[in-house]
Amino acid sequence: MPTVTPWTDAQVEADLRVKVVFDDIRATRGSEFVNNFWRGLANQPAVLERTWAALKEVMSARPSGLDPLTKELIYIAVSIANNCAYCIHSHTAAARAKGLTTEQYSDLLAVVGMASQTNALVTGLQLPIDPEFLV
Amino acid sequence: MPTVTPWTDAQVEADLRVKVVFDDIRATRGSEFVNNFWRGLANQPAVLERTWAALKEVMSARPSGLDPLTKELIYIAVSIANNCAYCIHSHTAAARAKGLTTEQYSDLLAVVGMASQTNALVTGLQLPIDPEFLV
Amino acid sequence: MPTVTPWTDAQVEADLRVKVVFDDIRATRGSEFVNNFWRGLANQPAVLERTWAALKEVMSARPSGLDPLTKELIYIAVSIANNCAYCIHSHTAAARAKGLTTEQYSDLLAVVGMASQTNALVTGLQLPIDPEFLV
Amino acid sequence: MPTVTPWTDAQVEADLRVKVVFDDIRATRGSEFVNNFWRGLANQPAVLERTWAALKEVMSARPSGLDPLTKELIYIAVSIANNCAYCIHSHTAAARAKGLTTEQYSDLLAVVGMASQTNALVTGLQLPIDPEFLV
Amino acid sequence: MPTVTPWTDAQVEADLRVKVVFDDIRATRGSEFVNNFWRGLANQPAVLERTWAALKEVMSARPSGLDPLTKELIYIAVSIANNCAYCIHSHTAAARAKGLTTEQYSDLLAVVGMASQTNALVTGLQLPIDPEFLV
Amino acid sequence: MPTVTPWTDAQVEADLRVKVVFDDIRATRGSEFVNNFWRGLANQPAVLERTWAALKEVMSARPSGLDPLTKELIYIAVSIANNCAYCIHSHTAAARAKGLTTEQYSDLLAVVGMASQTNALVTGLQLPIDPEFLV
Repeated sequence: MPTVTPWTDAQVEADLRVKVVFDDIRATRGSEFVNNFWRGLANQPAVLERTWAALKEVMSARPSGLDPLTKELIYIAVSIANNCAYCIHSHTAAARAKGLTTEQYSDLLAVVGMASQTNALVTGLQLPIDPEFLV
Repeated sequence: MPTVTPWTDAQVEADLRVKVVFDDIRATRGSEFVNNFWRGLANQPAVLERTWAALKEVMSARPSGLDPLTKELIYIAVSIANNCAYCIHSHTAAARAKGLTTEQYSDLLAVVGMASQTNALVTGLQLPIDPEFLV
Repeated sequence: MPTVTPWTDAQVEADLRVKVVFDDIRATRGSEFVNNFWRGLANQPAVLERTWAALKEVMSARPSGLDPLTKELIYIAVSIANNCAYCIHSHTAAARAKGLTTEQYSDLLAVVGMASQTNALVTGLQLPIDPEFLV
Repeated sequence: MPTVTPWTDAQVEADLRVKVVFDDIRATRGSEFVNNFWRGLANQPAVLERTWAALKEVMSARPSGLDPLTKELIYIAVSIANNCAYCIHSHTAAARAKGLTTEQYSDLLAVVGMASQTNALVTGLQLPIDPEFLV
Repeated sequence: MPTVTPWTDAQVEADLRVKVVFDDIRATRGSEFVNNFWRGLANQPAVLERTWAALKEVMSARPSGLDPLTKELIYIAVSIANNCAYCIHSHTAAARAKGLTTEQYSDLLAVVGMASQTNALVTGLQLPIDPEFLV
Repeated sequence: MPTVTPWTDAQVEADLRVKVVFDDIRATRGSEFVNNFWRGLANQPAVLERTWAALKEVMSARPSGLDPLTKELIYIAVSIANNCAYCIHSHTAAARAKGLTTEQYSDLLAVVGMASQTNALVTGLQLPIDPEFLV
């Protein structure tokens, strides 16, 4: 149950500022579907505009940068660590749409699980950083 | 300052159970350097054995799985979200050793930052998961 | 689904120790409604008493301290970062009852999102604290 | 010890893209001092630009929005919950520069501590959200 | 709603690798019931095998180690701090099956709540570690 | 480097409200040593009083409640999950003073590590809670 009411398409159509963002989401993704994240943020137009602009730029492919699937895997990893159920679902779906295989998903879970475990062990032991790791 | 005393090479040499693990770490990595994580865990031999065996398996390349650099990026992402300074340093160093470029590192940070932001926004708004995302 | 059964009013009435706390909650808030947090804690009377006494003191207005709405905003911010859905809902409702406007809520979300992002960037980069910031 | 080398003023002067951001930071804040966060991000110019533009917009005063000190308190609350030592120091310093009193700081800590405690209790008990709290 | 489909008993029976693990879970626990965690992991057989082997070893009683109920309490404490609803439920149920009393559960919640509060206070104040605490 | 200046004994002696708390800490613990946590909180007398009163009550032995060492283990587990270095050090030292053995510490780390891993796996898979676990 959200703390705000996600906007319907009719509400979006009636608000030019929000409509411009939704139109760009649809054009960029090549799909009519706009998910609840953006419909919820529509209640905060300034946050909506800034978040979409940043997300679009960050997730778009850049020469010599990370490929789109790798970015989704990183997004899922952070969302698991932050325990954001919505984000885990939306980005796991996005990763699958970008070709995530069962083998790769298994590796993702294994690494996230392993990192969570060793993070806890290191934190429990309060180990000093080896000088070899420093820049 | 650790909560246990990391083992020196002399201590490792004198304990067969720990020595077997350290020998395998050195052989697997092709390097004499063994970092403080393992020297701290040496105080808990059962945890040391299990953690090394699991990490070795998880991080090794499997056919059709994720490539080693991508695994390091996921490891860094989780370590940032869990705020493990030691792990951030050790895995950023490992990623660089595996070829991480400045462009890729910039993308990693951008995605981790973006995910952290949208995780918080979604959590604040308590948005319902779109049926389109479900399996 | 809770791990304990929240107490009904009939159960509360039959237990003097719990009834004293519930009576004070109702008197302090000027409302008959007592939410599930307290009904769950009723199973642990010592925790119930201590938590209510502390919360009542912390959230009450003190001369030259923070105003009640600001306290609710801080409560929501922590609850988002800790991902407590119940707490986000209860304190967002409390903030609205204390006059939170749409503009202010938009600012709250923007700051929480921004802080989450820069927290992650700083952690990823492991930046040293500038001497200028120290007491 | 950072994972990147924070830029010196000389490096900033020699890179137009970064210099534009630093000039705007100095002009906006009315101070020559630029802290390590921005010097670290200078290694990732795209992240630097986007982060500064967003932070500047989010933290600037808007009519009928939250006042600057309240925004700093929310920033500190999130940074504590996310355990970002750098961010806690920089935003506590910023809050003091904006007039934070000892009484207000005491209230901030009390609310953050109380929220952390009740977040944990609610999570442990897995309490259902009262219908009264829903929009 | 899971991101994978938990396996039915029929699916388990048809996959020898997974069946071996499920048989061992049933034999070790002396119960036919296998919970959704393992049915979900069945989609990732390597993760399933490694996780069950490790969990079995970690949670089994060792001479002079912690008793099984204490281990469950620690498991619950971590799961609350990490906000894993599933894990809170499964390990609270396990603790009750191992004899957790209402008094002990009340103490567990009280300590977890207190630790969460003082963790936040210490982090907010960024207090230096007393030399007396160091090894 | 703290955000406040921890109080010296001379400052404590000169402030009756703080001195009463410090005297009780010393009497309760049977030791002259008062650690930095309380010296930092002395800047916020109301928080100091409330926190000490609650901690004293929560950590003291109650008939049929958890024993003091188990409470320290739970405190450490939460502090690791919340990444509070100070708290990890102070409560690991306290646990050792209460008799924590190397074997028990090894078990503690193993359970915390395991819980962190399975928390992450469950969260990644978003598994539904088995009806068998519910009250």
